[in-house]
Amino acid sequence: MAEGSKKFVEQITDRDTDFAQWYTDIVKKADLIDYSSVKGCMIIRPYGYAIWENIQRLLDTRFKATGHQNVYMPMFIPESLLQKEKDHVEGFAPEVAWVTMGGSEKLTEKLCVRPTSETLFCEHYANIIRSYRDLPKLYNQWCSVVRWEKTTRPFLRSREFLWQEGHTMHATAKEAKEETIRMLDIYADFFENDLGMPVVRGQKTEKEKFAGAVATYTVEALMHDGKALQGGTSHYFGDGFARAFDIQYLDRDNTLKYPHQTSWGVSTRIIGGIIMTHGDDSGLVLPPAVAPIQVIVIPVQQHKAGVMEAAEDIRARLAVKFRADADYTDNSPGWKFSECEMKGIPLRVEIGPRDIEAGQCVIVRRDNREKIVTPLADLERVVEEQLKDITKSLFEKALQNRENRTENAHTMEELIEIASTKSGYIRAMWCGDRACEETLKEKADVTSRCIPFGQAPIGDTCVCCGKPATKLVFWGKAY
Amino acid sequence: MAEGSKKFVEQITDRDTDFAQWYTDIVKKADLIDYSSVKGCMIIRPYGYAIWENIQRLLDTRFKATGHQNVYMPMFIPESLLQKEKDHVEGFAPEVAWVTMGGSEKLTEKLCVRPTSETLFCEHYANIIRSYRDLPKLYNQWCSVVRWEKTTRPFLRSREFLWQEGHTMHATAKEAKEETIRMLDIYADFFENDLGMPVVRGQKTEKEKFAGAVATYTVEALMHDGKALQGGTSHYFGDGFARAFDIQYLDRDNTLKYPHQTSWGVSTRIIGGIIMTHGDDSGLVLPPAVAPIQVIVIPVQQHKAGVMEAAEDIRARLAVKFRADADYTDNSPGWKFSECEMKGIPLRVEIGPRDIEAGQCVIVRRDNREKIVTPLADLERVVEEQLKDITKSLFEKALQNRENRTENAHTMEELIEIASTKSGYIRAMWCGDRACEETLKEKADVTSRCIPFGQAPIGDTCVCCGKPATKLVFWGKAY
Repeated sequence: MAEGSKKFVEQITDRDTDFAQWYTDIVKKADLIDYSSVKGCMIIRPYGYAIWENIQRLLDTRFKATGHQNVYMPMFIPESLLQKEKDHVEGFAPEVAWVTMGGSEKLTEKLCVRPTSETLFCEHYANIIRSYRDLPKLYNQWCSVVRWEKTTRPFLRSREFLWQEGHTMHATAKEAKEETIRMLDIYADFFENDLGMPVVRGQKTEKEKFAGAVATYTVEALMHDGKALQGGTSHYFGDGFARAFDIQYLDRDNTLKYPHQTSWGVSTRIIGGIIMTHGDDSGLVLPPAVAPIQVIVIPVQQHKAGVMEAAEDIRARLAVKFRADADYTDNSPGWKFSECEMKGIPLRVEIGPRDIEAGQCVIVRRDNREKIVTPLADLERVVEEQLKDITKSLFEKALQNRENRTENAHTMEELIEIASTKSGYIRAMWCGDRACEETLKEKADVTSRCIPFGQAPIGDTCVCCGKPATKLVFWGKAY
Repeated sequence: MAEGSKKFVEQITDRDTDFAQWYTDIVKKADLIDYSSVKGCMIIRPYGYAIWENIQRLLDTRFKATGHQNVYMPMFIPESLLQKEKDHVEGFAPEVAWVTMGGSEKLTEKLCVRPTSETLFCEHYANIIRSYRDLPKLYNQWCSVVRWEKTTRPFLRSREFLWQEGHTMHATAKEAKEETIRMLDIYADFFENDLGMPVVRGQKTEKEKFAGAVATYTVEALMHDGKALQGGTSHYFGDGFARAFDIQYLDRDNTLKYPHQTSWGVSTRIIGGIIMTHGDDSGLVLPPAVAPIQVIVIPVQQHKAGVMEAAEDIRARLAVKFRADADYTDNSPGWKFSECEMKGIPLRVEIGPRDIEAGQCVIVRRDNREKIVTPLADLERVVEEQLKDITKSLFEKALQNRENRTENAHTMEELIEIASTKSGYIRAMWCGDRACEETLKEKADVTSRCIPFGQAPIGDTCVCCGKPATKLVFWGKAY
């Protein structure tokens, strides 16, 4: 697994000294990305891309199990098509890349590189939806999209990123709303049970919702530094796009109706979220479900008789059931330990002459460094148990961080005080007015993260204007 | 599986009446693609995309088994980067799409949407290759690419298409050449054993090789109408790009050397090749390895007692091992048969009251319409055998077509006569001069398809100029 010419594991910035630099160090030194002359875009290297492949597989399986089918739409959107839905074009036009020439000829109509594909899906749906028997349409697409951001950071905000975008059409509003929540729940399940990342499920405010949506739902995760990360969103569109694109179906009652629409997506941003939730001063810490290598075997005193054979025997046994690898390079064991810590490999198995004699190996957890002396006969069972337990521990640790970093604010002064001294979620009541949302941004530099499901009000007046309020909102700073 | 609102299976043009129209009918009526307002691009619909997913899986497994890793490069290439290798930019610049604006701002340097990614990989390799220990680098990428074609056809020639592009770097020319052939052989194996498409492996002439390559190798398939299709290519670059991009490694002997490079790719064009090799007047005929549905159960007299239960029992048994589906809509069995023929499903299983009584079902092959009365106890075994046999039969039939359509030409007159009266490969000797290649194009409207491996000369003078010739070339018309 080790890159050939590297001589030692380079140091990274301490996480608590400079979180941003620590993040940048990890994405580079764990070999996740590289930069190129294409400004604002990233090269996703084999180790980073393997994480994405695991994310894709785990989500795609869930999508297909709930009846979704994959398709592929063109990467270009003609300007006139993008303009068909007013709110949508206003939201996206300022940040798209425009193709204006094909070969040496100027195009008669410029094309944008898709920032999202609602318009393309709608044009297609207008062609293929005729009757109630054609519904629902449950499509998804894995692709890259482009948004011309001014400031970029690997995985978190990149001019090009990889994602999936689900686009579905339903006969009724009720069915479409159920789909919106079904997919949000799939994201929440994936974040919590596969990635060990606790999320708050909730609704976005009008100000923060997706351009063109009736309602946007989100799963929000809190990073180690107390800033929030929007993990995935699920949008309910009503029949707005259907009307704009003239999509109608003949219902059972023989009348023409507009179908109701959803879209939902997650992106390579998830990888940034994993780093900032679980990583530590030694590097990346990967949840086993998406780790390219779940367990690595490292021989100790590998030149002594029988060590390499024993290591290879362990690797081969583990490879039957897990993503297993071994490091047989002639680097020192200490170097190898650092390297697999930097790369966030969940478990390493150390095996040396004394272990062989005792019929055991030493399993070391990446997340808490616990050493588990394991009889060789129990190898697979212990590895399986530990991998499960790591996901659980990561989740609990992240949940603890979130709880430590969540405060209630009952007054504006209190909110400003918390926002200026601490980093995390601030729970406060809100009247629903955009003006108050803007005041909070201005005075406390926080945005509404979401109106969480399962509302448990902590007061009855808006923290900003003092008018009656029924909505509890999570406020904070976000990536 | 059936689309909801379709009332009957629409007719398609006869294959021998109008091959081009027959092709277009199939891609639309088998629900493989749809058109959009994005000219020259296609929407790949769920049934078409599922074929591509199977192609990806089968190839990706082979790539990973031979040590390759997937990465993701930016989709844009700055003009100055594209220009670094002279032959390369000359070949591609005339047919790229140019992004000139980001948001509302004009870019200081225009970016092309990648037509292929040699330049991006080389820039990255210059960053990460330092020592002989870093070699080989065996990278692959699954992505979409854009070439601004004037005339387009779904799958065969589209402004945007999906593909994989492998890009590798090796310490020596020998290793790189071996890689080039290794990947060509993987393509040949995939075409012949998974897709039932016989291919000719060979080298492209200087005129037909990839822009910037030292040598291009190809697997060429012959379509039912006698036109050739370049199925996949594998290029050896020598150290030309390495020199242009200043990629050097420190070798064991402590001197700096240029590494040797390959690239290789196949695209969604393969789907067009499958259609044109195996399809018939009833629609698509899919090789089992890539068929989204390998076997479909169709109940006959489904309203009679026990029929639906028996059908579902068969479907459930088959789903354990195969990609199985059933059609329980209230369309007639005849309609369903036509529908699954149009979609090219390799096997259908018919089950009705009399079959149930006799403890059997009827398995019908798509390729030759053979009906196999099968005791229910033998279901899985027979389905497995038949799926294997279908691939073999498809291959043999396609091979027979190729043999029927391959002729030897010993004189120019003979070659012109064959080219003007028949469609297929013409085998003829060639001196190696580009001028003769151009004369053949002008006078007989054929291009060199490849210089096949395992040369068996049929003469010793060039069919065009009469000078000494040692190379046997396959000539023909091509997609």
